[in-house]
Amino acid sequence: MRILGIDCGSRCTGYGIIDCGIRHHTLVDFGAIHLHSKNSFSSRLLTVHQELVKLIKSYQPQFAAVEDQFYLTNFKSVLKLGQIKGVVLCTAALANIPVVEYSPLEIKIAVTGYGRAGKKQVQQMVKQLLGLTNVPEPHDAADALALALCHSQVMTHHNSIEKYKDY
Amino acid sequence: MRILGIDCGSRCTGYGIIDCGIRHHTLVDFGAIHLHSKNSFSSRLLTVHQELVKLIKSYQPQFAAVEDQFYLTNFKSVLKLGQIKGVVLCTAALANIPVVEYSPLEIKIAVTGYGRAGKKQVQQMVKQLLGLTNVPEPHDAADALALALCHSQVMTHHNSIEKYKDY
Repeated sequence: MRILGIDCGSRCTGYGIIDCGIRHHTLVDFGAIHLHSKNSFSSRLLTVHQELVKLIKSYQPQFAAVEDQFYLTNFKSVLKLGQIKGVVLCTAALANIPVVEYSPLEIKIAVTGYGRAGKKQVQQMVKQLLGLTNVPEPHDAADALALALCHSQVMTHHNSIEKYKDY
Repeated sequence: MRILGIDCGSRCTGYGIIDCGIRHHTLVDFGAIHLHSKNSFSSRLLTVHQELVKLIKSYQPQFAAVEDQFYLTNFKSVLKLGQIKGVVLCTAALANIPVVEYSPLEIKIAVTGYGRAGKKQVQQMVKQLLGLTNVPEPHDAADALALALCHSQVMTHHNSIEKYKDY
């Protein structure tokens, strides 16, 4: 199962792609779509769409995972992030890829087993679970990989329950 | 000049298309993209994108106008509206149509000449300016036409200044 995690951001949208087996995860690719603030917001949205289209075409993921909440203190930031997220969801829907949304708490629990884990702990676990030598950078890409790993854990858990539910 | 006004909404996104001459406006079409709440939010975003693509293809507008602020009291609603707006801006950018954003105050002043005008006064002026017998319905479509009329007034005013600035 190939999963594309996307960490929406109005300056930098991270992505991470992993392949998931029964007991292991393999890193496929990660990176970030950098959005220059000198460009109009419309053109930034277009960039996100076009880069995601390329990624989906190259890697053919079966699922996408995004964050379902944002810890922000003002409406302007929420509105900007909402616009990026809208483009991400629509682009995935156009490619017929189901998108699953996870809260920060779900991501922390799935990746580290601890709901109060800090950002750095999550990133260290991403590195460990994928057998990398360094934490992926930029951190937006590490967050996107955490999202993909979260979906993988949830699916594995779900499949285990399905497998043993008749026993 | 043909203008497409879009009133973003997570249940109903209104649209209105007008042709603008020097002293008159002609209604081309108006309506609403209804988004069923039983559908996933991703599929609602996809519907907005697909319907807008059809409208743009049919009517070939030169400009699009959307609202740049939302009077909302909670983050969830802002996030939903932001997602719709993101898809609208991205769809227009894909078709190479410049999108102009107007605040509710700018719309009221441009359409009624009065910044404290109520929703109904704006809708009555939409009816009058377009020579209609009734206020366009649903109100989302009337709001979209107000956006298009606002852009028309601003452009006319801008062109007048350009024309006479050497005198």
